[in-house]
Amino acid sequence: MKRGIILAADWVLCCAEIPPIKDGAVAIEGSKIVSVGPQQEVLSKYHHFQVYSFKGKLIFPGLVNAHTHAPMSILRGIAEDLPLMTWLTKYIFPVESHLKREWVYWGTKLSLIEMIKSGIVLFCDMYLFEPEVIRATEEVGLKALLGEGLFDFPSPGYGPLEKGFELTKELLEGFQNNRKIKIAVSPHTLYTCSPETIKKCIKLADKYAAPLHIHLAENKEEVSEVQKRYEKRPVELLDKLGGLKENLLAVHCVKLEPKEIDLLAKRRVKVAHCPESNLKLGSGIAPLPEMLQAEITVGLGTDGPASNNDLDIFSEMRTAALIHKGLREDPSIITAKDVFSMATDLGAKALFFNDTGKLLPGYRADLGILDLQHLSLQPDYNPLSLVVYSAKAGYVSDLMIDGEFIMKNYHILTLDEELVKDKVQEIKEEILLILKKNFSPTLDKC
Amino acid sequence: MKRGIILAADWVLCCAEIPPIKDGAVAIEGSKIVSVGPQQEVLSKYHHFQVYSFKGKLIFPGLVNAHTHAPMSILRGIAEDLPLMTWLTKYIFPVESHLKREWVYWGTKLSLIEMIKSGIVLFCDMYLFEPEVIRATEEVGLKALLGEGLFDFPSPGYGPLEKGFELTKELLEGFQNNRKIKIAVSPHTLYTCSPETIKKCIKLADKYAAPLHIHLAENKEEVSEVQKRYEKRPVELLDKLGGLKENLLAVHCVKLEPKEIDLLAKRRVKVAHCPESNLKLGSGIAPLPEMLQAEITVGLGTDGPASNNDLDIFSEMRTAALIHKGLREDPSIITAKDVFSMATDLGAKALFFNDTGKLLPGYRADLGILDLQHLSLQPDYNPLSLVVYSAKAGYVSDLMIDGEFIMKNYHILTLDEELVKDKVQEIKEEILLILKKNFSPTLDKC
Repeated sequence: MKRGIILAADWVLCCAEIPPIKDGAVAIEGSKIVSVGPQQEVLSKYHHFQVYSFKGKLIFPGLVNAHTHAPMSILRGIAEDLPLMTWLTKYIFPVESHLKREWVYWGTKLSLIEMIKSGIVLFCDMYLFEPEVIRATEEVGLKALLGEGLFDFPSPGYGPLEKGFELTKELLEGFQNNRKIKIAVSPHTLYTCSPETIKKCIKLADKYAAPLHIHLAENKEEVSEVQKRYEKRPVELLDKLGGLKENLLAVHCVKLEPKEIDLLAKRRVKVAHCPESNLKLGSGIAPLPEMLQAEITVGLGTDGPASNNDLDIFSEMRTAALIHKGLREDPSIITAKDVFSMATDLGAKALFFNDTGKLLPGYRADLGILDLQHLSLQPDYNPLSLVVYSAKAGYVSDLMIDGEFIMKNYHILTLDEELVKDKVQEIKEEILLILKKNFSPTLDKC
Repeated sequence: MKRGIILAADWVLCCAEIPPIKDGAVAIEGSKIVSVGPQQEVLSKYHHFQVYSFKGKLIFPGLVNAHTHAPMSILRGIAEDLPLMTWLTKYIFPVESHLKREWVYWGTKLSLIEMIKSGIVLFCDMYLFEPEVIRATEEVGLKALLGEGLFDFPSPGYGPLEKGFELTKELLEGFQNNRKIKIAVSPHTLYTCSPETIKKCIKLADKYAAPLHIHLAENKEEVSEVQKRYEKRPVELLDKLGGLKENLLAVHCVKLEPKEIDLLAKRRVKVAHCPESNLKLGSGIAPLPEMLQAEITVGLGTDGPASNNDLDIFSEMRTAALIHKGLREDPSIITAKDVFSMATDLGAKALFFNDTGKLLPGYRADLGILDLQHLSLQPDYNPLSLVVYSAKAGYVSDLMIDGEFIMKNYHILTLDEELVKDKVQEIKEEILLILKKNFSPTLDKC
């Protein structure tokens, strides 16, 4: 018989569409939610279940980070306020050319800590040495859509491209029936992958019924580079190659024309919107109101913590709502409900996890507990507004995935934070040596 | 003899212009900083001082919140995603018409808790029943520039306008030589105060050599209303009335034309830039790069916590930097240094506190301690980048004002958090009753 538990709290926020339940409860059997409602109802129906009481707290569907490069937390802050190409070619690529398997593992653990404390239960990642990301993620227990970044030039991770395809195929086979880890075929961009490489990726994804994950139309430089090479805009080129399909997760989509938005909607493409990274790198502001209007499934992503510089989906919700209100001078254009959906159920759908993102019977028990004892979360007139506009990373006290606690009362149960900190300090010293050897660093300055 | 202490930490960030000091120390005598430098140097020079060691932490100049309505935290979240006029007239004003002196006192305490935990040592406030804001602030020990909001219609705070002027005069006299609390003459706006009222305010401020604090050019509605009434844009009208002077703190300044920016610079007007409130209320995006280019003294403000919905200057720094990078598609246009200055020394200057905002000899010991044990602040390649782009409200462990600890190891020494929480819950119930009586509320929904 499956273990039955009840979580009871001052508030239960099931999803954007349903008003929050005062003095609510969630009943869970095994990994699944069986009931949500007022405490009295749930407790009397499931009187034999073990009860966990969260006084002064709020239960919310676990958040989804729809795009990141988790291991890059080890590079957080090495360079700031620079144009994308300078940042990449002068700082990120020189360090990444020395990248070690072990750095990826510990960088991922560092990022997992931050994501857990920000209430994230599910994330999507593309990087180098992705098997190390998988290893760290499986150990810690988050759900994820993961893939080795593929590009035409040799990779510090896998070497020549054919090895990258071999690795991706192995991963696709190894994780075919894994409920927590799914594999995406992950070509990097249309300017680092040739049309032939993209076609091969599409074919491989189709063969395994797997998602395809690519950066698309991030900034004007990408658009002009792709136009120069192929006389087509990025969305147009990917469409011609057969990539615009239901299994595509397209990241950024900043530089879209109206007809391209219609095309993405028509082809049921999923989008990962990364507002803070797009701002910080000077890429621009994606047409989010139009994408939502067209009913595109849009999730929220932080992008890599070297360009963000955090892994905080609370902050992305707030930014995603605020920026369009200000830009369009219309405070109603994107609402708290819109961004909460993007951070939960739409994000989960964008990563092809259809039973995560709402607290309703039949969904997995993937959830967070927000601690309203932090006085910036008082008074509690409006729980949805608190979660979207006032909550901070670090105010999440507990996290549950598939019915199992990953964090309890601010303590992560599945990793050793002190050990991660020590390892990250060691890696930092190695990276500083590389930076000092390779070029004159502007470290300790922004 | 004055008490001498040394604060030693992994990093000391003195100000935006000076690279952070690794293993640094700050020596303090009474309320003033006497020395800043590497630990070895400071410890040997001031060997008789008592040493406080902050291992794994960073010392930074206390942050400045250049504009808020602190008591409005008791209204946080009562209505969201609405146009400014609907939000004001349907929700805020109906509740404020029942405003009680006691609500202002406890609302301010609630906000002071949040500000302390966000590293704020100095703030500027304009509201109703401002003497209650002053009382709470004096008890807790923050520095502030405060003023009763003045407007032509009767105020729930002081009644008819002449009583408002009497109150302001009393406050100006009472706090003339107070180092921690300064009083500003605070006309609300150019559309709620007649030209005669504004002139009277200017005269009163001049008489007491006090600052003048006003909302100016916040949104297009203000500009068109002022133009309709006076055939002048707001900046032009205030100039004609004699208000554009060195003692003016102009809040928002979103809708500025290039020649108005030049005029503000020429007249040495101070500006409080509130990027998140301007976004959230759909007011627009202020021309920050141009204001900084013109060398205007610009501080950063949260605006009221009912429209923000927090009192977090870390978040305002990040937003102020990010939004212009994205909007202008230029990641260098506003840097970490720019926004850190705005949140510290420029903010302090904007509030006419000239010895706050830097950790240098001669400045007051107004500072915060950031806890780098939070792993989203690792690795620590670049302390300024961590403070601006990665730090969160709640990661500040200690706060010192005029050489006295206000918060020590996350515990606020000068108020009782539990009592504040209980009082705020009681007030919330009263406000809910008012909302329910007055109109059909859309509470529990955004």
